[in-house]
Amino acid sequence: MLDYALLAALAAVIRNGSFERAAQQLHVTPSAVSQRVKLLEERMGTILVVRGSPCTGTPAGLRLSQHAERVTLLESELRDELPGIRQDGPAVTVRIAVNADSLATWFVPAMAETPDVLFDLVLDDQDHSADWLRRGEVLAAVTASAQPVQGCDSTPLGALRYVATASPDFLRRHFPDGVDAASLARAPRLTFNSKDRLQTQWTRLAFGTEIASPTHWMPSTHAFVDAALAGLGWGMNPETLVAAHLRDGRLAALVPDRPLDVPLCWQRSRIASRTLADVTRAVLTTARARLTQA
Amino acid sequence: MLDYALLAALAAVIRNGSFERAAQQLHVTPSAVSQRVKLLEERMGTILVVRGSPCTGTPAGLRLSQHAERVTLLESELRDELPGIRQDGPAVTVRIAVNADSLATWFVPAMAETPDVLFDLVLDDQDHSADWLRRGEVLAAVTASAQPVQGCDSTPLGALRYVATASPDFLRRHFPDGVDAASLARAPRLTFNSKDRLQTQWTRLAFGTEIASPTHWMPSTHAFVDAALAGLGWGMNPETLVAAHLRDGRLAALVPDRPLDVPLCWQRSRIASRTLADVTRAVLTTARARLTQA
Repeated sequence: MLDYALLAALAAVIRNGSFERAAQQLHVTPSAVSQRVKLLEERMGTILVVRGSPCTGTPAGLRLSQHAERVTLLESELRDELPGIRQDGPAVTVRIAVNADSLATWFVPAMAETPDVLFDLVLDDQDHSADWLRRGEVLAAVTASAQPVQGCDSTPLGALRYVATASPDFLRRHFPDGVDAASLARAPRLTFNSKDRLQTQWTRLAFGTEIASPTHWMPSTHAFVDAALAGLGWGMNPETLVAAHLRDGRLAALVPDRPLDVPLCWQRSRIASRTLADVTRAVLTTARARLTQA
Repeated sequence: MLDYALLAALAAVIRNGSFERAAQQLHVTPSAVSQRVKLLEERMGTILVVRGSPCTGTPAGLRLSQHAERVTLLESELRDELPGIRQDGPAVTVRIAVNADSLATWFVPAMAETPDVLFDLVLDDQDHSADWLRRGEVLAAVTASAQPVQGCDSTPLGALRYVATASPDFLRRHFPDGVDAASLARAPRLTFNSKDRLQTQWTRLAFGTEIASPTHWMPSTHAFVDAALAGLGWGMNPETLVAAHLRDGRLAALVPDRPLDVPLCWQRSRIASRTLADVTRAVLTTARARLTQA
């Protein structure tokens, strides 16, 4: 079998981004961590860590580190069943890919339902979060993709509802004669990053066509809301984040009663893990209470 | 000189992440964009775009694309001075690296001061945002590094004040006998990502030593606050984001009157650009009003 003391050192370096912090976490000296990673690299015949600030894993290093974390997860459940095994190992960390808008609206309450689990969250667009699962880098993902990734179960969560919103002043300035394809092509919009298709999806839904326009690029859910309030542009904002602003009149919908519903799924590895089953139960319960159900 | 029609196509593909969306933005067909990028790749003798979903720039492609954007910026100012040049070119986009906590607290109001500028924001830790400037990938950065990057001017902005916070229930559960090095080593904390040193900096400030502990990894400023409210862990939160929660008693400081002040600087390229000068003025004015001044 592989030498798991070496693998634990590698996983700690990649997760913490530094040999010093990995050493603190493992309660050994930095030179011990360095020796273990070097020995593992010699045995594998390849570099596993790119030394830098922060240190990052090479593809081979990441793959080994994922494997070590899965073994830690399985081992933690053994501990519950066999009280003879010492109980003071590190708490279990579950890595999950989640879209930023879910994290900003309903995912933290789901996490709070399983207080003994540590979460390692990776943020990615809902159209791309399943890629992390496909590459084996996470154990579960909140994703727009319903098609199960190989080795995974997929469960619908409901839809995150978005409203195309802007400040009343922005609407007066850029849409004096109403919102149409011509005015949308000139008015600045907000785009999260190059993966973000929501604004375009909404113009297709509301006007039957994809409309290109000048845009700000702003990779933050709350900055989207702040930028809409400040009159920088219009953007697709989660309804729950802007409901109070819409009521107060600080934001307005570009087209009333024309939300965009983005259906989300929970995809989880079929690895037999009670921890992951607990997290799954919390995610499904919370999502069903907080997302728009068909 | 270089063929700037080709460069504009390359920059649009890299920024939008797709040939189709670049074509929409440039009002040409996707095959015209594809031909231009291919022609540029042939002339340069190297691949400039990694075709994928999204498309990304190779190092050479990124470098050329940055150059094209700088030329666009300079050209936009020519337009103001020479009214004979047609005025309907694309609005100027300024790419800036900013730390997530600045974006969540004071940076959007600064952006709102220059309504004619489009912003392309790159998020990175304040200890690493200057790297983007060093690599020439942004024109300016909000950074913890005061030492001017080559070709840049550096101006102090004041400090972002952080408070180590947790929910009262979390404090009762994990620190029944007070907050000290031993209890901090066991209580789960929040860490933004492997670049985030704030929690460790604060334990050094408050207890004279770096303390390793179990942690959640959560790359979002507002999720940090939500997770602290939900009792998942303690974390360093910007004071302005938690002031109301501290007043209401939904969050409490781990150690009263022991904030961590993180001094920030504005570093900007010395490129002679009135747009960048306008943005700089807005950033300095807003930061001086909203950050903690020595």
